[in-house]
Amino acid sequence: MLVNGKPGNLISIRDRGLLYGDGVFRTLRAIQGKAQHWLLHYQKLQHDCAALGIACPDVALLSAELNDLLVQHPDGVVKLIVTRGEGTRGYPPSILPIPARIWDVSAMPDYPADWAIYGIKARLCQLRLSQQPRLAGIKHLNRLENVLAAAEWEDADIAEGVLLDAPGNVIEGTRSNLFLVRDGALLTPDLSRCGVAGVQRERVMEWAAAHNVPCRAEQFGLAELLAADEIFLVNSIIGLWPVRELQNRTWSHYPIARQVQKWLNHALD
Amino acid sequence: MLVNGKPGNLISIRDRGLLYGDGVFRTLRAIQGKAQHWLLHYQKLQHDCAALGIACPDVALLSAELNDLLVQHPDGVVKLIVTRGEGTRGYPPSILPIPARIWDVSAMPDYPADWAIYGIKARLCQLRLSQQPRLAGIKHLNRLENVLAAAEWEDADIAEGVLLDAPGNVIEGTRSNLFLVRDGALLTPDLSRCGVAGVQRERVMEWAAAHNVPCRAEQFGLAELLAADEIFLVNSIIGLWPVRELQNRTWSHYPIARQVQKWLNHALD
Repeated sequence: MLVNGKPGNLISIRDRGLLYGDGVFRTLRAIQGKAQHWLLHYQKLQHDCAALGIACPDVALLSAELNDLLVQHPDGVVKLIVTRGEGTRGYPPSILPIPARIWDVSAMPDYPADWAIYGIKARLCQLRLSQQPRLAGIKHLNRLENVLAAAEWEDADIAEGVLLDAPGNVIEGTRSNLFLVRDGALLTPDLSRCGVAGVQRERVMEWAAAHNVPCRAEQFGLAELLAADEIFLVNSIIGLWPVRELQNRTWSHYPIARQVQKWLNHALD
Repeated sequence: MLVNGKPGNLISIRDRGLLYGDGVFRTLRAIQGKAQHWLLHYQKLQHDCAALGIACPDVALLSAELNDLLVQHPDGVVKLIVTRGEGTRGYPPSILPIPARIWDVSAMPDYPADWAIYGIKARLCQLRLSQQPRLAGIKHLNRLENVLAAAEWEDADIAEGVLLDAPGNVIEGTRSNLFLVRDGALLTPDLSRCGVAGVQRERVMEWAAAHNVPCRAEQFGLAELLAADEIFLVNSIIGLWPVRELQNRTWSHYPIARQVQKWLNHALD
């Protein structure tokens, strides 16, 4: 753990990250001393900081801190939080505070290997995401909706929950981005009103462009999702999970998801 | 400052309050060693913890901590944060974590005395609050909307911003609850889809009931707000501020607001 460049696991109770969730974060995978797609994550961090008016720490500074961390912890889940820092009391973000940089490393979760191969069982969450265009797409620290959604089930066989927004559009998993395959084309939810636009979502789009597979981000509902030829979920820790079961539908062949998965995993090496 | 019963101003970077805004808070005023309406605040804390599935710390424990704090800091703004505590990595809230108790004291802000007497200049915020019935009314730590709204203006003459929700219903101030007076009756926004239901809002309702003044919580829009005979804002730190100016309307007499204000202030003693 590294807090503002120094080893430690504590932060001020006046940090706006705690007070208001006034900050952003990234979750990366480290393999043999290398943080996967660090620069893509940094670009997202920069974008998200800008959206909240937080001065994003310099890439050289963060890269140096990350390297220090990787020397001690070459493998696992690396989390980086950047908050607006400490300020005076109250909501208005003063110009003065120095953003806080918080690094943490955990062991890789031991997901069953089957999930990536044969697909996962997913469920539909009851919680509906609220629409807030000003925060949509941003990986910020206001994550109570995800917490409440993830609290809906305890069955360890259910790997992920699918979230709709209030009007019923499919948005994402509780901790992953979602794609469907229909007639050989990819479709992923439009995230202009809610959801988190992750790095792996962008990489899947990159794969599609490179392989001349049509890929659009647009609104669609549950009926369209359940009618899909394939569904898959992605994030930087799980990689890609095809969906084997959702509501009363099951799937067993994932030809496109498999290609994407191979490419995502290969590009890890 | 007091963190989990011990003097200190630091919290773990693995506390879910920081990671996800997974917690609730209260802001109280201390006067001469007494925290105003502590039990009302505790009831709200208990309600809000229950809504998030957080085990609310016992009133005896919190009261004892508060008393310790007040011995050293008899006057000022007391903030209490209760988070879900530290857990394992990921959104699902495990049953195990012990909620964190965080106390902080600051000096009372030096608002111009005129504001409570002659009323304030308020502005309409551009940011629209999102609707999330599962979180509505709760004073939780996901406060980025308030931060963005409060960042919209720098003019120190503007004391508060009024927030609408996405469909255009009036909801609250960025840090206060709102009432309007029309034909001798009080109206306050329905907070079942967004907003924070504060202790002073409840006290105003209590005043109305005790004085046979009709008071309803219901949906209304900006036109209805601007057509009001009086508008006033309340919270535990500012007390009551009548609104003197909003959009192109001005007000100069606050007969009902004045009665409520006297009662709120008197009950402080």
